[in-house]
Amino acid sequence: MADIKATWKRLADRSPVIEFVDACLRGVAQVMLQNNPLTGLVILIAIAWGAFDSGNPRLLGGAVVGVVVGTLTAILLRADRDSLRSGLFGFSPLLTGIGVLLFLRGNALVWLYVVFGAAATTVVTLAWNNIMKTWGSPAFTFPFVLTTWTLLMGVYQLVRLRLHTPTPPTLPGHGGAEAAYFDGDTVLGMFEGVAQVFLIASWISGIIILIGLAINSLRSALFALIGTVVAALLAIWFEAGAKDVESGLWSFNAVLTAIALGGVLFKPSVPAVIYALFGIVATVFIQAMLATVLAPYGIPTLTAPFVLATWMFLLAKENFTPIPQHKSYRGGLMAPLRPDVGKKS
Amino acid sequence: MADIKATWKRLADRSPVIEFVDACLRGVAQVMLQNNPLTGLVILIAIAWGAFDSGNPRLLGGAVVGVVVGTLTAILLRADRDSLRSGLFGFSPLLTGIGVLLFLRGNALVWLYVVFGAAATTVVTLAWNNIMKTWGSPAFTFPFVLTTWTLLMGVYQLVRLRLHTPTPPTLPGHGGAEAAYFDGDTVLGMFEGVAQVFLIASWISGIIILIGLAINSLRSALFALIGTVVAALLAIWFEAGAKDVESGLWSFNAVLTAIALGGVLFKPSVPAVIYALFGIVATVFIQAMLATVLAPYGIPTLTAPFVLATWMFLLAKENFTPIPQHKSYRGGLMAPLRPDVGKKS
Amino acid sequence: MADIKATWKRLADRSPVIEFVDACLRGVAQVMLQNNPLTGLVILIAIAWGAFDSGNPRLLGGAVVGVVVGTLTAILLRADRDSLRSGLFGFSPLLTGIGVLLFLRGNALVWLYVVFGAAATTVVTLAWNNIMKTWGSPAFTFPFVLTTWTLLMGVYQLVRLRLHTPTPPTLPGHGGAEAAYFDGDTVLGMFEGVAQVFLIASWISGIIILIGLAINSLRSALFALIGTVVAALLAIWFEAGAKDVESGLWSFNAVLTAIALGGVLFKPSVPAVIYALFGIVATVFIQAMLATVLAPYGIPTLTAPFVLATWMFLLAKENFTPIPQHKSYRGGLMAPLRPDVGKKS
Repeated sequence: MADIKATWKRLADRSPVIEFVDACLRGVAQVMLQNNPLTGLVILIAIAWGAFDSGNPRLLGGAVVGVVVGTLTAILLRADRDSLRSGLFGFSPLLTGIGVLLFLRGNALVWLYVVFGAAATTVVTLAWNNIMKTWGSPAFTFPFVLTTWTLLMGVYQLVRLRLHTPTPPTLPGHGGAEAAYFDGDTVLGMFEGVAQVFLIASWISGIIILIGLAINSLRSALFALIGTVVAALLAIWFEAGAKDVESGLWSFNAVLTAIALGGVLFKPSVPAVIYALFGIVATVFIQAMLATVLAPYGIPTLTAPFVLATWMFLLAKENFTPIPQHKSYRGGLMAPLRPDVGKKS
Repeated sequence: MADIKATWKRLADRSPVIEFVDACLRGVAQVMLQNNPLTGLVILIAIAWGAFDSGNPRLLGGAVVGVVVGTLTAILLRADRDSLRSGLFGFSPLLTGIGVLLFLRGNALVWLYVVFGAAATTVVTLAWNNIMKTWGSPAFTFPFVLTTWTLLMGVYQLVRLRLHTPTPPTLPGHGGAEAAYFDGDTVLGMFEGVAQVFLIASWISGIIILIGLAINSLRSALFALIGTVVAALLAIWFEAGAKDVESGLWSFNAVLTAIALGGVLFKPSVPAVIYALFGIVATVFIQAMLATVLAPYGIPTLTAPFVLATWMFLLAKENFTPIPQHKSYRGGLMAPLRPDVGKKS
Repeated sequence: MADIKATWKRLADRSPVIEFVDACLRGVAQVMLQNNPLTGLVILIAIAWGAFDSGNPRLLGGAVVGVVVGTLTAILLRADRDSLRSGLFGFSPLLTGIGVLLFLRGNALVWLYVVFGAAATTVVTLAWNNIMKTWGSPAFTFPFVLTTWTLLMGVYQLVRLRLHTPTPPTLPGHGGAEAAYFDGDTVLGMFEGVAQVFLIASWISGIIILIGLAINSLRSALFALIGTVVAALLAIWFEAGAKDVESGLWSFNAVLTAIALGGVLFKPSVPAVIYALFGIVATVFIQAMLATVLAPYGIPTLTAPFVLATWMFLLAKENFTPIPQHKSYRGGLMAPLRPDVGKKS
């Protein structure tokens, strides 16, 4: 394993093509806050499985075009090289690519949206990393959220494409949806929730992704599992709609918050775990709020609940001395914010 | 009086229990930007009166649980000790506690919302104090607003609890509500508006609160009165709905803006008073705007108009030389932002 | 020409009245990011033409009252003198003045809204310049947008005035509006789009404004033209409503983004032009998104799409080395942010 890793590193250092492939694979993994090309490859396989299995193979194309265009745009804009090589300009455009293809329908123009959206996501990433740098936090997937929301909501005015989301615009109300309860479908939904991070509806993909996580960080894989289980149980307890729980839609944001707060951003400790659990619960409530806010526009929350929850719990930490920031952190995520850390590692 | 104050201070310094009670009472007073346990006690009596008088005694419970849980959470998160002792981690959770109980209905689960909401409000307070520190301003009651909005809007999706607000979700329109006019009910509404800061509908509570304010700061009490009168008259002039004016709902945000701009943040002077009046008027228009923005979600503005208006008028002040920041300021509110100031006082 | 300029400067230095007139004329020009009183005068003529031609002469009054009250408020608040003289406290209130008169109807009270709105816009300008200073950017016309949105949305609650916008509050949907196509009306709409920056519906005014721009900066005039043409063609391609394209409503935000990114903020170069074109395209999509977001409130986007797009493309620039900030920049726009630069020039 270490041997393969060393060989790959040598290849990436020598060939610009391999270096670019390496950056894109890391970009796939960075959606889950991991800086590891093998994890990225395994996740890409999971996306491919889910895309073909659900009869929507072009989602794989959206992912690949997204990460490639996003990374290329960052190169053209001469973004920070260390961040580029860590895949930090690939992960949000990748999600934009999948999101556009999943929620917009029309002719070939939709691919123009994918390319434009991926490039725009990189610009928004540069801007929001700049904004959040003020408080020592990265932008996470917020650039994906902003860009994709913009493209989706825009088609009500630029009607050449059509929106294809689960629910049409409506005022929020106590709907008549069947309440969720605990059964086998809910358990599968917990695994599907891991894959829903990539907008993929497949519990098998979810398991493959967990394996990919475990390759790089057992702790991240464990917290991803904790996140999806806690969120699903909470959603059942508070009587969320059954279909959404079974599709993992109440879980994917919690998975990301769990990885961020539990697996990456804070040093492991008992209070840190309790704090991460608190963040997971908050993510579920923020998701419920955002679903209400977006109901009149008929668009999904995407990963905004994860971003908002993680920002709150991260920005609150300055006064939170018992859990200092992880010193041995691999440097991937925070690299654009602290270039000196990135260069040392 | 000075004797009681000194005795109390001695007790608080010696006993951690009294110290905690002192911090919680100051937390009650800090809703009104006052750092005084006696003011807090008087306001708590006003809340108790209003809660029992309106047949909703558990609002008092929500206030107490809110301020206690919020302060305890801040202790667990090892927040700045001076800020803690000044009640700066109690005031927003207190409002969350009342807000959740007033606007959500259901079984005992609603108390879980109160506890979770109060704890979450403290996390959001830490995060937003961090954010606003960039511009030398505290978060005011914005953490209460964000957390309570989130919990209220969430119940459209997590339907175990029910929303109980005055108006259901609707598109904004020029409604057929009876326009307000000036009479005895409006005058009582002006006092009720002071109590509505705590979501309490009672003009007697309003008068008790004014007394509590006067104990600590005559100037703050005076500006609270100015705020509620100006806002109510303005709402009448511009034909707001009669019921809302008579319930003080157009006044409570202006009361807070008036205390902040007129009583606490700026050194007294003629231009400062004119500036504060301008801010009071702006608060009324911002409240009207926010009521429209929130109409499709069926939730109230809470104290967001006060926060937004005060931020604007405070952040504009850097170029506003004739009104320098109050040098003799008691240090309570800004302590988390300027710890060196807090330590000196 | 140079002679007139020198004479005018002498007059402005000697007479406070001429100095104030000069600041106001520069304020008119600063809407287009130009610091030139003659450009301001020409644009004022264009506004006058459009106002009288469309049978709504009081729009000229709104513009004049707006810029005068806004600038006076800034003097009273003792704002930075160099910024004041460059017209940087006049441009947003000018737009508020026109916007209030165009979109609100009622009795003489509407003029109170103009005066209050213009003064409030100056406070919001001071606050937002303070906020955006953190990232080295000015507030652009965002204070106009925030203040005018607030006043417009407020009248659903303070019903003494009535909203008079093109569309009533509605949930977004794929409307049955006739799709735009390219013809003579569209070409006229491209010129009208330049005037729509000032909420003026007249292609002749648009041409006069382009002349005013060219007097100060041929590059800005050229990019204004590029902005309106690209935005109109894009709107036609993506099947926006015909009426809006022919009225220039898809163009005016792109005109401002084009001037900002192409004409003022970045040093001219091939990548800078491509970057500006990217920003123009992004502005159109952001405008479509905002039109959807605002549909339930029945209010227009105003210049928010320009502001958001320009902020994104400007804040992303820190890592964008090939396009350094224009060193020979005239100092007008950034003066409040870098007073030392302003003093040198």
